[in-house]
Amino acid sequence: MRVALLAGGFGGSRFALALAETAGAENLTVIGNVGDDVEVLGLHVSPDLDSVLYTLAGVFDTERGWGRRDESWNALETAAELGGHAWFKLGDRDTGLHLVRTEALRRGEPLSAITQRLTAAFGVRSTLLPATDDRLRTHVQTPAGEFPFQEWFVGRGHRDEVDAVRFEGAETALPAPGVIEALDAADVLLIAPSNPFVSIAPILAVREIRAALEHRRVPAVAVSPLIGGKTVKGPADRMLARLAGGTEPAHVAECYAGLIDALVIDEADAERAELGVQVVVTRTLMDGEDARRRLAESALSVPVA
Amino acid sequence: MRVALLAGGFGGSRFALALAETAGAENLTVIGNVGDDVEVLGLHVSPDLDSVLYTLAGVFDTERGWGRRDESWNALETAAELGGHAWFKLGDRDTGLHLVRTEALRRGEPLSAITQRLTAAFGVRSTLLPATDDRLRTHVQTPAGEFPFQEWFVGRGHRDEVDAVRFEGAETALPAPGVIEALDAADVLLIAPSNPFVSIAPILAVREIRAALEHRRVPAVAVSPLIGGKTVKGPADRMLARLAGGTEPAHVAECYAGLIDALVIDEADAERAELGVQVVVTRTLMDGEDARRRLAESALSVPVA
Repeated sequence: MRVALLAGGFGGSRFALALAETAGAENLTVIGNVGDDVEVLGLHVSPDLDSVLYTLAGVFDTERGWGRRDESWNALETAAELGGHAWFKLGDRDTGLHLVRTEALRRGEPLSAITQRLTAAFGVRSTLLPATDDRLRTHVQTPAGEFPFQEWFVGRGHRDEVDAVRFEGAETALPAPGVIEALDAADVLLIAPSNPFVSIAPILAVREIRAALEHRRVPAVAVSPLIGGKTVKGPADRMLARLAGGTEPAHVAECYAGLIDALVIDEADAERAELGVQVVVTRTLMDGEDARRRLAESALSVPVA
Repeated sequence: MRVALLAGGFGGSRFALALAETAGAENLTVIGNVGDDVEVLGLHVSPDLDSVLYTLAGVFDTERGWGRRDESWNALETAAELGGHAWFKLGDRDTGLHLVRTEALRRGEPLSAITQRLTAAFGVRSTLLPATDDRLRTHVQTPAGEFPFQEWFVGRGHRDEVDAVRFEGAETALPAPGVIEALDAADVLLIAPSNPFVSIAPILAVREIRAALEHRRVPAVAVSPLIGGKTVKGPADRMLARLAGGTEPAHVAECYAGLIDALVIDEADAERAELGVQVVVTRTLMDGEDARRRLAESALSVPVA
């Protein structure tokens, strides 16, 4: 069974691992968000792609929730001491990857090709693709003004409420090579329990990707990021409340209107679930291998409508 | 007593420290070689400037002979694992500096201004200037072909004999701001016990710097890098034999013809020293603070001719 997954960083990477373990790593293609890519100290950082890569490679720091295990911080600390604007934390091993990627991008290699090389170097057998090789950047509009995504998320600790989200470059961004092919070849299309507004929406902002989901011939299933109306991590619950009018399964489903056939929700949200799509109720917290597998199996078991 | 020193990396940084300790750090201006600057994994590396900077800051790794003490190597190791061309060793702390410098250069800040910021951040009270802010690169011609300096020095372990040295960009390179002013204001001009061909010659290849030494009104003193016809480190002795015809003090003096009034040589080379300039004989091996101070005092004690 071939699986195509749209994924952000934290929830996306956990769910990608669940699918790789359950469906077989080589059957999984992850289409990752690049809207939160950012330049730090001249390095091109792709936080969401790297969370997925590190997780599938088994080197992700699950306690910290980002970056690599067994990290050291000497380059960043030194840069900060020397006046570098080190607002975005990069470990030394992480920096090694960013150096390779940044140099290759400057040479003109597309992000998708670089990502493929990095994935292979880590021995990861799943396919990881950026949604697009073109520049696509998420900006959030808040009462305090508009900010590039990471400036709001990391720089301001996502404390400002978000009134709207804008995807710079989305009008002209084309899917990276392999993305549409993976969506066409998949037996099931999945949307990870990521933030609908800033993790999944930037992927869907690439017109041809959205169209591929709209015109799907196989089931598309999203996993809700909510557990009892709250998210495990990040501001998705606050954003759902403000931008979609609530934190019930229906508000998540609304974000994917016309794009999904089923929504996997947590037991804690079951009683409020009356949706226009199929509902699958399970425990969605991925707090271990068993829990991950159960969630992946639930998502993969949705029958064709 | 204001001192201006032309210096390469290893011998240059030791001698710079000797002068800072003896003449007072704030009285020293070091004009450093940039001919062996190199791009590694997209980072602009200035090995000679950094050896001087790290030495004056007290963080140089004297055992290894380059880079910083207490280094870790995680970024470079990761980059190598991921297919990065990691032929030139960069520690993590070192990489932090290169990140700051490279980002600033890309922003358009001149190397001299960046170097001044870095020096200040390290609390170094001496002035460190690149010979030029313009691109100047050393290439060596060998029986195996012409190589960019570091490709020969590090990449090929400087195993090829050198037939000639070429300084790309020298015709148009201007002295960095402050260089000519420092040479004009100095009470003594010094040339460090560095490689005459690939450490000092690239500095002198900047026309106005050479002219400032030619038209000096204060004594200029070079320290020979030879001890008993050998160098402590590096290929200067082999290069002197092949390019200057021998490894006696006269061959060193010849490299600086018209530019110096005195040559400080080691006791081991004393009997063969019949030169057209004053000769100061001392022990030149800087194997400790006392030895450093003795050498600095010898060089600073040369009377006006």
